[in-house]
Amino acid sequence: MNLNPAHAAAISSSTESAKSADGVWHRCHLLPDGDPAKAIRDAALVVQQGRIVWLGMQAELPQAYAALPRHDAGSAWITPGLVDCHTHLVYGGQRADEFAMRLAGAGYEEIARAGGGIVSTVRATRAADEDTLFALAAARLAPLLAEGVTTLEIKSGYGLDLASERKQLRVARRLGDAFGVTVHTTFLGAHALPPEYAGRADDYITLVCETMMPVLADEGLIDAVDAFCESVGFSLAQTERVFQAAERHGLRVKLHAEQLSNLGGTALAARYRALSADHLEHLDEAGVVAMAGSGTVAVLLPGAYYFLRDTNLPPIDLLRRHGVPMAISTDHNPGTSPVTSLLLMMNMACTLFRLTVPEVLAGVTTHAARALGAADRHGLLAAGRAADFVLWNVDSPAELAYWFGRNPAAAVVRQGKVYPAATSVQGVRP
Amino acid sequence: MNLNPAHAAAISSSTESAKSADGVWHRCHLLPDGDPAKAIRDAALVVQQGRIVWLGMQAELPQAYAALPRHDAGSAWITPGLVDCHTHLVYGGQRADEFAMRLAGAGYEEIARAGGGIVSTVRATRAADEDTLFALAAARLAPLLAEGVTTLEIKSGYGLDLASERKQLRVARRLGDAFGVTVHTTFLGAHALPPEYAGRADDYITLVCETMMPVLADEGLIDAVDAFCESVGFSLAQTERVFQAAERHGLRVKLHAEQLSNLGGTALAARYRALSADHLEHLDEAGVVAMAGSGTVAVLLPGAYYFLRDTNLPPIDLLRRHGVPMAISTDHNPGTSPVTSLLLMMNMACTLFRLTVPEVLAGVTTHAARALGAADRHGLLAAGRAADFVLWNVDSPAELAYWFGRNPAAAVVRQGKVYPAATSVQGVRP
Ligand SMILES: [Zn+2]
Ligand SMILES: [Zn+2]
Repeated sequence: MNLNPAHAAAISSSTESAKSADGVWHRCHLLPDGDPAKAIRDAALVVQQGRIVWLGMQAELPQAYAALPRHDAGSAWITPGLVDCHTHLVYGGQRADEFAMRLAGAGYEEIARAGGGIVSTVRATRAADEDTLFALAAARLAPLLAEGVTTLEIKSGYGLDLASERKQLRVARRLGDAFGVTVHTTFLGAHALPPEYAGRADDYITLVCETMMPVLADEGLIDAVDAFCESVGFSLAQTERVFQAAERHGLRVKLHAEQLSNLGGTALAARYRALSADHLEHLDEAGVVAMAGSGTVAVLLPGAYYFLRDTNLPPIDLLRRHGVPMAISTDHNPGTSPVTSLLLMMNMACTLFRLTVPEVLAGVTTHAARALGAADRHGLLAAGRAADFVLWNVDSPAELAYWFGRNPAAAVVRQGKVYPAATSVQGVRP
Repeated sequence: MNLNPAHAAAISSSTESAKSADGVWHRCHLLPDGDPAKAIRDAALVVQQGRIVWLGMQAELPQAYAALPRHDAGSAWITPGLVDCHTHLVYGGQRADEFAMRLAGAGYEEIARAGGGIVSTVRATRAADEDTLFALAAARLAPLLAEGVTTLEIKSGYGLDLASERKQLRVARRLGDAFGVTVHTTFLGAHALPPEYAGRADDYITLVCETMMPVLADEGLIDAVDAFCESVGFSLAQTERVFQAAERHGLRVKLHAEQLSNLGGTALAARYRALSADHLEHLDEAGVVAMAGSGTVAVLLPGAYYFLRDTNLPPIDLLRRHGVPMAISTDHNPGTSPVTSLLLMMNMACTLFRLTVPEVLAGVTTHAARALGAADRHGLLAAGRAADFVLWNVDSPAELAYWFGRNPAAAVVRQGKVYPAATSVQGVRP
């Protein structure tokens, strides 16, 4: 990705020209929490000082709001702003040439010799300065924002040393400020073993728990803590050390669990009342029961499932039966899910995982907000909430999951500001 | 999809404000025919009167062009305009609610009783007037154009009577005029049996061959002829009648073949020197050999494969071994491939079909042009060709297949006019 100076300039000013969403949004239909059964047709929604103060049938609009400025929604459907609750958006480089090599028949070894794999992303992330990381991540964020994402999680985990993890998390915060989008930061120091700690995973976990986490938490850069618990990642015991450290700092946890094998990470996460357990292709019923007991959200990541050509489906029916809330996310990352469309993930969750349309609508709104511990602030249209919502140029909300490779957003309202479709991120092409 | 009057107005004027591409495009890298081995780095490309007149290393730019106006490509990679060689873009309605019903457990019968299936699209297409069909198709075309499609094929086949097939093909022509995009029309009267001909397929084929085709060919609405040869479509004998009629009118043929079963349609198509045989999931080696002998292009449609959760891969290795050119297309249609991203199809062809990056780059340029009988005019950057090309904001052409749910087009040049990314289709949100 080139760093086009014209783009960078447009990004830095992107929130400045956005107009206020205050007033009465009329000629619309509302889907307050993603559940089509609770849709309100011929509705209106009132915003004052950047907050939703009323919503309901247009015919019942209180007289008090009748004189406010009007926004004609053009018969759009309005949903809560979308929540992308699992991303690795900030990193250096990309791995397209590795992708091409693999398709041309190169094996793991050959790619490693050519400098590929996660190590290459760690190297590029460490080498990049903050402004470069910001510009690269902004270009990846643009298509998400254009599709109506108003809240997203961004993980560290490609720095793997204090300075570089800090750099990733600082860029994540800057993205939130620059684009007027709500960013939840997750510290994923325990993502992979950096080369300089080869053979010393326990020592690295000590660094994560006793140096990185205290410092970065102190600097206000950590909203939650995550780890990669896998045979090729960190063990259950190492993961538990990370969770214990998080507990000491009063930080909620999440976990990359049961993606490649069933290690029991989900049950551990549930014991620590994790906000979410993510991936879950190899989760068994005991793990599902544990999640149900702890209120942990199952974050499903169909982009990685698709890109890795996985054939083990997450246990959707068990999750349904035990009432575990399911969220859907991009898992954007350069190695296993280089996708920047949450709408496409909705289609893939339906097509590949056989989730229903109401399930995927909840999966990118209410349930995704809950996976961030933010169900009281995001993922729902309600009086008192910040004005984060999307106008969709569709006849039926099901179209959001049905079409793919298409963005029917007519306008996005983030933090009380209106971004019309063509300029929802100015200068950066989604 | 709402028909927002503001959008319709913007569409109709969309080519008016586009600027001329005439001049020297410098600071770019060129990929003349999709083959990375033939890339020209640090290149320039000269356009005069809407045509490419020179391309090569910037250092070798002939003195004669030195004084022409300059376009700074900002280190972009430039490829030929993309060619989407198999679409059903013009139709009424959509089938999102049917999609939702199926995910909720409804069977084929229940959906048919609720008015779903292809019959519902035929009904909606017949009921819609030309302006409505135009506006609906324009909204579907917008994301394709924004991604750099400069040539596309549009099939009829949802009218299934003379007036309605004409209406579809007329709208296809109008789209070409309105957006300054090259449209190839394909008459697909033999797509499905209309309800009024139930049990009388041969009579319907007579109508297709003896009424519709002569009239529509006369009106200049047919560039090629296609049929759906399948156990649930038309038989080999009926398909051959269509091909014979096409031959009488001097029209080249294409075929939907071997998608659900191996009927031998491809071999028949090869006998009629078909431009392409499309789908091909059940094609055998005899069919591949026949294609190789006739120069017929294999059009692969990974969107339908994905959306239908097909598990039969097209015989990629056989096609390679016998030197059959492979094209990639969206197959955009409301029933089995509601996708409007050719870039996503490139990623799916790599991920699901294991095509290589050079194969998919050729698959949406040179080979796709050949599938339209237009290899002498499209899919290649060369002196003498119309200025149809795309500037991509990427470091490596492999990124076009690697990222998904993202559009790195920085600008699109169609028929000698420049459409910058943010406004490549004005007013219609890609
Ligand atoms: Zn992840
Ligand atoms: Zn088709």
